[in-house]
Amino acid sequence: MDHLIEKPKLSKATTKRLSLYLRCLKELQKEGVQRIKSSDFSQMTHVGSATIRRDFSQLGELGRSGYGYDVTYLISVFSSILDTIEEKRIALIGCGNLGQALVNNNFRRNDNLNIVCAFDNDSDKVGQVFNGVEVYSMELLDQVLAEKKVTVAISTVPSHHSQAAVERVVKNGITAILSFAPDPIKVPEGVTVHYIDLTTELQTLIYFDELAQSQKR
Amino acid sequence: MDHLIEKPKLSKATTKRLSLYLRCLKELQKEGVQRIKSSDFSQMTHVGSATIRRDFSQLGELGRSGYGYDVTYLISVFSSILDTIEEKRIALIGCGNLGQALVNNNFRRNDNLNIVCAFDNDSDKVGQVFNGVEVYSMELLDQVLAEKKVTVAISTVPSHHSQAAVERVVKNGITAILSFAPDPIKVPEGVTVHYIDLTTELQTLIYFDELAQSQKR
Repeated sequence: MDHLIEKPKLSKATTKRLSLYLRCLKELQKEGVQRIKSSDFSQMTHVGSATIRRDFSQLGELGRSGYGYDVTYLISVFSSILDTIEEKRIALIGCGNLGQALVNNNFRRNDNLNIVCAFDNDSDKVGQVFNGVEVYSMELLDQVLAEKKVTVAISTVPSHHSQAAVERVVKNGITAILSFAPDPIKVPEGVTVHYIDLTTELQTLIYFDELAQSQKR
Repeated sequence: MDHLIEKPKLSKATTKRLSLYLRCLKELQKEGVQRIKSSDFSQMTHVGSATIRRDFSQLGELGRSGYGYDVTYLISVFSSILDTIEEKRIALIGCGNLGQALVNNNFRRNDNLNIVCAFDNDSDKVGQVFNGVEVYSMELLDQVLAEKKVTVAISTVPSHHSQAAVERVVKNGITAILSFAPDPIKVPEGVTVHYIDLTTELQTLIYFDELAQSQKR
């Protein structure tokens, strides 16, 4: 997997901004913009221009900030850093409303990200097919993960069951787990867990809104 | 709203880490831990101890890193920074699977965050009640937002309709919007939009997993 070696080692914060940059650049490209200065890009992304220049300098030889950056070139470089070259075969653990929303959307913006199987304890859900993806009983987890060559798991299992669910997934050699339960899960070294905590996201939004409103007064 | 003035002005990155800190501290408290050193806290949170010390120094007089921080005290300080003191009355725009997952969960971890009404264009959904929250037609948006005293909106509307949906919300004086459509929305100054892009979150996870796996080899 040679492409891994070429990837720059980025902080989590830079990686997240990279996705934001990419979305905004695609927007600019749609509008026919060919070059962008870091100051203008800063206004568009709400990221400080010093941060943008620092991020860009870590990402490669991208041009000069004064002259402006080539939009199409930035898109090609940033895409190659973020995109996985291989298909990622994903298992969804927990098929409630949130799980169904995920499988119905199935990351259609990125062809390499595919939920290929789903699991649930609810016998009413087992055997159902959502957007072409079958729901299996948790009892079949080991077998189906192997058969479907899964390497990434998404857990929408509630907090009090998520530790147990993730342990079963990890036992099957899966090292990348996205969890929608905010409580920290204990995993062995070498396993990466990324949490999406919707309450925190909302609190962060409200914090910044209150700050903005208090500055207006 | 005097409490706003007391809040320290934090970066988005620090604010997000603050929520992570809070979750981990509550975990420690549950396990009976009374003091924590920044080095141990670093191991638990996977945040560098220099970052932790810098964050903590911005958050107030919290103690000394060598001696350890008092867990209960940290929890009280961090909670008061993040929690909104007033109830936030939230409108949900778009009531598909994701919207239903949000309203069924309804941020039950935080009593001050309440989805109080939902909107959808689908006539099959209008009039339905999910977890006590009624779904209204988009035609009633202006009226219901005012009646229910809504100040925050969550949009699960697909990308190509999200700009229009958000504009209607903003016209009603709402300044805080959480959007699950990743395309940037244009809003007037003073309006804060926070995006949750699930594809990006998954790509970030995979990036870090690939990095971890390549370091093992």
